Amino acid sequence: MKDIIVQKFGGTSVADTDKIKNVARAVIREKNLGNDVVVVVSAMGHTTDILTKLAKEISPNPSSREMDMLLSTGEGVSIALLAMALQEQGCDAVSMNAMQVGIITEKVHSKARILEIKTEKIRTHLDNGEVVVIAGFQGVTDDFEITTLGRGGSDTSAVALAGALGAKRCDIYTDVDGVYTTDPRIVPCASKLEKISYEEMMELASGGANVLHPRAVETAMFAKTPVRVRSTFNTENLGTLIVGVEEMELHKPVTGVASDLSKLRVVVCDVKDNPGTAAVLFDSLAKENISVDMIIQSYARKNLNTNDIAFTIEKSDLERTRQILEYVKPELGYSNIYVDDKIAKISIIGAGMIGRPGIAAKMFRTLANRGINIKMISTSEIKISCLVDEVYAADAVEALHTMFGLDSDEIADVKGDLPDV
Amino acid sequence: MKDIIVQKFGGTSVADTDKIKNVARAVIREKNLGNDVVVVVSAMGHTTDILTKLAKEISPNPSSREMDMLLSTGEGVSIALLAMALQEQGCDAVSMNAMQVGIITEKVHSKARILEIKTEKIRTHLDNGEVVVIAGFQGVTDDFEITTLGRGGSDTSAVALAGALGAKRCDIYTDVDGVYTTDPRIVPCASKLEKISYEEMMELASGGANVLHPRAVETAMFAKTPVRVRSTFNTENLGTLIVGVEEMELHKPVTGVASDLSKLRVVVCDVKDNPGTAAVLFDSLAKENISVDMIIQSYARKNLNTNDIAFTIEKSDLERTRQILEYVKPELGYSNIYVDDKIAKISIIGAGMIGRPGIAAKMFRTLANRGINIKMISTSEIKISCLVDEVYAADAVEALHTMFGLDSDEIADVKGDLPDV
Repeated sequence: MKDIIVQKFGGTSVADTDKIKNVARAVIREKNLGNDVVVVVSAMGHTTDILTKLAKEISPNPSSREMDMLLSTGEGVSIALLAMALQEQGCDAVSMNAMQVGIITEKVHSKARILEIKTEKIRTHLDNGEVVVIAGFQGVTDDFEITTLGRGGSDTSAVALAGALGAKRCDIYTDVDGVYTTDPRIVPCASKLEKISYEEMMELASGGANVLHPRAVETAMFAKTPVRVRSTFNTENLGTLIVGVEEMELHKPVTGVASDLSKLRVVVCDVKDNPGTAAVLFDSLAKENISVDMIIQSYARKNLNTNDIAFTIEKSDLERTRQILEYVKPELGYSNIYVDDKIAKISIIGAGMIGRPGIAAKMFRTLANRGINIKMISTSEIKISCLVDEVYAADAVEALHTMFGLDSDEIADVKGDLPDV
Repeated sequence: MKDIIVQKFGGTSVADTDKIKNVARAVIREKNLGNDVVVVVSAMGHTTDILTKLAKEISPNPSSREMDMLLSTGEGVSIALLAMALQEQGCDAVSMNAMQVGIITEKVHSKARILEIKTEKIRTHLDNGEVVVIAGFQGVTDDFEITTLGRGGSDTSAVALAGALGAKRCDIYTDVDGVYTTDPRIVPCASKLEKISYEEMMELASGGANVLHPRAVETAMFAKTPVRVRSTFNTENLGTLIVGVEEMELHKPVTGVASDLSKLRVVVCDVKDNPGTAAVLFDSLAKENISVDMIIQSYARKNLNTNDIAFTIEKSDLERTRQILEYVKPELGYSNIYVDDKIAKISIIGAGMIGRPGIAAKMFRTLANRGINIKMISTSEIKISCLVDEVYAADAVEALHTMFGLDSDEIADVKGDLPDV
């Protein structure tokens, strides 16, 4: 049996018919290496924006079910056109939407999770020698409702398909040529990594290095699918391979440095120090689907029997968070709320820091030497994050990048675009 | 149980978001009359042209399977937007594509026929008080391949759904305000018909009066579904009701006059007069899906043992017809082929001509009085057609319209557009 390679091409890679023909060539190149090929594509270029604009003309707040019906048409166009382009270049190909494949998701609109992928029909087509072109970003419930997977959806589709098919590798083609030690737009001497572990990639991604959505990395890690992130426009470059930590040789304790400017900090002052107050607060936020990142609760002030709770959230969640805090005020009995939206979360990531003491201290010292004050700290096994003033973000990343020996001799040549959904 | 009304809106009726909001108002008006409403829509405006252009940029001859995948996305957009518009106006609504409904067709791409429509899910939504918005023009095979229904597809979807649901009526909203005795662009004193029988409508439609596709009329006739053709832009006007001939009062022998300029005539000269030659010829054409309209075979010339066969086909089928004739030349042994593409087929239609002799003679005399030569004649129970020189088409229609007492006192106010697919 042949190896299966899953390739994923985002919206900028299929933005017009010439680019689609280019993608077809990249697919045929992979097939000519002797592999069975499954291709996952996003909607063409700005399709999603155009469809969203039409919906907004009709309703300021369209139902999420109908938005999913609407947006799923975008990939319907790109899969058919890519299949045509492959056929035109002499390669047997067939397009399939999520309903035809059977990409079964939860019954949740606009951000469903994949529950199961049926592979029989895909295998039949592969056995016929066909390339199978599959719509990313979309799914279907077991009662035939169309869903979409939310941010990072097409990446997740590709990686999940690779897992379900037992693919040898999932290649994510994008407009950057790999994963860097840090954002090359901030630190020009950032180095491209040849390999990175799922765990590190996930921490890098959720810390703001948006090459690949953490959900997609998590899905790959679960199925142990090797994922290669590489450039659509420079196929000579092999990009970065994401694999299990057991396949890494850990020369350096720190693999990457990330900065994240998308968060803000909320401090709730003088909360009653009763059992369960924190639970009330974070339950209420969770129910409204507001993700909380870092949390710090101060020691209770002995005399007053109150303490302060600080946490970070996405900037876009601020209004809803204020409403929830207003709603739970009687229970929490806080005095006032303080919002700090000029913050940056700076993280160092590395599977190699496990069992190497002193990494955190080195990070804090580096920041202190630059005169950068640390507002909050959080740590995981392979990541240490510090909240600092937004104005120091680039400075902090540069200093840490140098201190942990990540600077490259070359200046990275990277386009400015972020990858698409 | 409430009555079900099926409404169909074509591409020009949903060409932009303002028009979609208008359509939503027409739907809600029908629902407020106490009916359950199912709405069938086509793709917005020029969507099909735009998608076809993209396909042609990729391949001069894209596979019909992938064209169906591509084109079916068009209705996916319009159904979601109309459902949103209904919800925004306070009306519960849900959109469904052909796969979700279960509009099962033959395994033929680009012109499939509907085999079965599953109605359970539609009924569940109607019972929930929802308007169900369904994608026209598309179907699905029982192994989940997407098909399209070809010309007149959305009309056929609507009428077939009305039949399957036992609807009280199917309203076809279009940009003309009803069915006329003849094309008002040719004869300004054409009269709008209040009622017409399925049989007459079918003959009118296949004769070139393109208000409603003959397939849709046939489908309605089979299920005895009353169909109303009416204007999207003038909902005061009740349009024309199409019903069974048994519900018609036949005051006049002729209901309408049609002219058809889409055909050309092929004459195959000196064909061997053996048994089966005609069968060979028309079998070969049928296999290539070329519809032949009128056929005349001359008497065999006694001495030569050959005859001439003349038939009419769609102008667009000429090249393929020539190839087939070349291919069967050894068997037919004809001398040469003569093509006449400057012809018009003029028809008079009327269920009332059954049992009233002399109608044909009156038609031929009327044409002769105008100096119009008749090249071929064909007749059915309720239609008589004559092939004449293209230049006489308007003249012939006018003369017949007057002679059979169809002229109206008013001048029809009709927009120039033909209805869409």
